[in-house]
Amino acid sequence: MRTIGVLGGLGPAATVDFLDQLVRLTPARRDQDHIPVLAAFRPQVPDRSAAILGLGPDPLPALLEGLHLLERAGADLVAIPCNSAHHWHAQLCEQSAVPVLHIARACVARLRQPPGAAVLVLATRGVQRSGLYRTALREAGLEPVEPDALAVQHDVDRCITQIKAGEPAAAAHSLSRVLRQAAGQGLSCVVLGCTELPLAARRCDPEGLTLVDSTRALALAAIEHALAEGVA
Amino acid sequence: MRTIGVLGGLGPAATVDFLDQLVRLTPARRDQDHIPVLAAFRPQVPDRSAAILGLGPDPLPALLEGLHLLERAGADLVAIPCNSAHHWHAQLCEQSAVPVLHIARACVARLRQPPGAAVLVLATRGVQRSGLYRTALREAGLEPVEPDALAVQHDVDRCITQIKAGEPAAAAHSLSRVLRQAAGQGLSCVVLGCTELPLAARRCDPEGLTLVDSTRALALAAIEHALAEGVA
Repeated sequence: MRTIGVLGGLGPAATVDFLDQLVRLTPARRDQDHIPVLAAFRPQVPDRSAAILGLGPDPLPALLEGLHLLERAGADLVAIPCNSAHHWHAQLCEQSAVPVLHIARACVARLRQPPGAAVLVLATRGVQRSGLYRTALREAGLEPVEPDALAVQHDVDRCITQIKAGEPAAAAHSLSRVLRQAAGQGLSCVVLGCTELPLAARRCDPEGLTLVDSTRALALAAIEHALAEGVA
Repeated sequence: MRTIGVLGGLGPAATVDFLDQLVRLTPARRDQDHIPVLAAFRPQVPDRSAAILGLGPDPLPALLEGLHLLERAGADLVAIPCNSAHHWHAQLCEQSAVPVLHIARACVARLRQPPGAAVLVLATRGVQRSGLYRTALREAGLEPVEPDALAVQHDVDRCITQIKAGEPAAAAHSLSRVLRQAAGQGLSCVVLGCTELPLAARRCDPEGLTLVDSTRALALAAIEHALAEGVA
């Protein structure tokens, strides 16, 4: 078995959720069946979304520092449970000696939608600007949809901030408005393209929508990679 | 702020719970307020309880390897969310350049019981044999009580195994029998002296007992240490 490196703390609750999924989704009956993991919580990395929007310092040096720490400590692959950080995925891969998984590609790979289906992407403003899911969905022959009203993006932002502030009930309230609006628009599939959102979504009525959890998709990709590499 | 090293994966679900407590109990409104953490999940470390009972290989070399990995990666203190591993606490401290917290002492320090009060200790057979809580409770002027019937320890063992196997509902069922029996005996305070037990206890009726969670106590001790060191 290979060691999964986790460049985390972006934010901390989302990283705990990622690790929780990793443990739950690994086929194991006892401790020794589980996959070794090295998780670096680096919460001081500058805000990713703000940087993409040109409103804050560049997080790339801090992300590279975390990546190299994981490599030196023995990680055989790296997962980053933060969608916005994937704006720098190409630069991270260039400087990495080990594979760095891509959360948006892992997430889109798990969609079971007919060709051309509309998929609503909920994410930070930074991820929307970077086009992370726009690109991945189009490559998969699907039609990315972004929140059309500023009020909806405002509720997404609020939900993320509330999870980071340790207020999951308030976060679920914010996300509920977004999901009701999406269902009312006739959408049927929603990508939770920020790792804080699943923590709120689990407390929401899904309103009949298919919610696709990017944290869970990344955890499944990491497990597949770690176990497959172990066999090889 | 200092970096908290976590020698974990013993077992994996308990380590996720420890990290969850660490994040929830840290006073923080945004990512950057949180404490840096390095968590090494080393689930291949040999079974601690079996080793104490002379029934399995010595885990000390693997524990030291994990400890040194955390030191090299920049941990300023180390927490081990596994009670049984603390049988080797003195040896780990001797070979460590950074402080290694002691889960049983952290747990007993949080008890609010009158002098001489009886405290039931639920733990692995290894921890009972090692006397980890017996010593810590006596030093605090409290009266340690161990399960008097073999059937009760059997239910504790079963609960731990079920959490490790990813069966929390079954684990809660096993622990419920133990708590009912303790309440029936007239006990009022129970130490959950194995980090798997709180994961089951949260699904149980506490039967009016005060349940003291060793995982939470270790998380609080780690936060206090990390923040105090940061101020100094």
